[in-house]
Amino acid sequence: MALIKVHGHHFSTATCMVLCCLNEKQVEYDFVLVDLPTGAHKKPQYLALNPFGVVPTVQDEDLTLFESRAIVKYLAKKFKGQGTELLGNTLAEQALVEQWCQVEGQSFYPPASTILFQTVLFPLRGGTTDEAVVEINIGKLNRVLDIYEERLSKSKYLAGDFFSLADLQHLPWTQYLVTACKKGDLISSRKHVSAWWEDISSRPAWKKVAEKMPK
Amino acid sequence: MALIKVHGHHFSTATCMVLCCLNEKQVEYDFVLVDLPTGAHKKPQYLALNPFGVVPTVQDEDLTLFESRAIVKYLAKKFKGQGTELLGNTLAEQALVEQWCQVEGQSFYPPASTILFQTVLFPLRGGTTDEAVVEINIGKLNRVLDIYEERLSKSKYLAGDFFSLADLQHLPWTQYLVTACKKGDLISSRKHVSAWWEDISSRPAWKKVAEKMPK
Repeated sequence: MALIKVHGHHFSTATCMVLCCLNEKQVEYDFVLVDLPTGAHKKPQYLALNPFGVVPTVQDEDLTLFESRAIVKYLAKKFKGQGTELLGNTLAEQALVEQWCQVEGQSFYPPASTILFQTVLFPLRGGTTDEAVVEINIGKLNRVLDIYEERLSKSKYLAGDFFSLADLQHLPWTQYLVTACKKGDLISSRKHVSAWWEDISSRPAWKKVAEKMPK
Repeated sequence: MALIKVHGHHFSTATCMVLCCLNEKQVEYDFVLVDLPTGAHKKPQYLALNPFGVVPTVQDEDLTLFESRAIVKYLAKKFKGQGTELLGNTLAEQALVEQWCQVEGQSFYPPASTILFQTVLFPLRGGTTDEAVVEINIGKLNRVLDIYEERLSKSKYLAGDFFSLADLQHLPWTQYLVTACKKGDLISSRKHVSAWWEDISSRPAWKKVAEKMPK
């Protein structure tokens, strides 16, 4: 059987999410670099795989799949019984994993990504940071992290006392918030969020991915 | 066994998504009105159920669950074998359902909701529409719908030739785009998107929900 192919880039948070999941599941893969700086993701060959022209895209035999959060769910299901279980055992556990995965996608990711774009990516491309936008999004993130703090005072991880996709999905953006964006105080100012971040970011599956991300 | 309780409001797209799913699965439920105009969703009693203070929240025996997209997945799994199957049969089908569910949450919903806020909700609350923001988001939605048009020229529904959560998740916001926002041309200008919308919006499970939404 052919290895799973991951078309992506090590700078991309969505790619990092998928690579971390593959590591957790102890799955070997072929990495195909999509050269973002030269616009390879907007060329016909790549758009035939992923019409949105973003990374990553995964190919597993006949299946071509995009959307990182869909890919990690697919991998967690396909490799059930191998590596770390990431979905929860009971229907109720699985529902809570899904709930906190949705919170990541809908409430955590939008402000976190806006902060990275404003404070790091725009300036890198010669633009200027809109400080008002940064402030608004730090406010949004503070409200979300206050809810996390409360939640993590009651369970070790977001969905319960087990590491799951819900935690894993937070790794790439939190990494950038802490390193590139220098917003580590969002995490360190909260006791339980801080302990959670310390725990999940020191997992070997993540450390292998994080060391290739730009600081 | 007690009926599932849905705390929500008929004006809320996220509530409508969950109600439609319950109808598709032929599940009876108790509806608990959360009186949004009086701020019931921000009061301690409700915040104890859902710390984000948004609707809906579902209670099923001991399980309290928020995030509409997590709730519909839970219902589709719990009531497998009853009513419409919404998740796909094979692992590959399920992955494609998940992929297009993620596209809805990440690429369709953000511009669709922004257009509704700008063109309907802000003016209702005495604010003014920012036409530039509307234009930007119509542009985003056009790009997404062009991809849907191509996809729906090859399969009857988003994830394949079967109706699934991926289609269901699009119902509430598309309904408002067509009715309240008067942006029906986004749909009707595209042959396959138009046929898809005609099909999914005429499902009895959705029509029962849509008739209680404001026009």
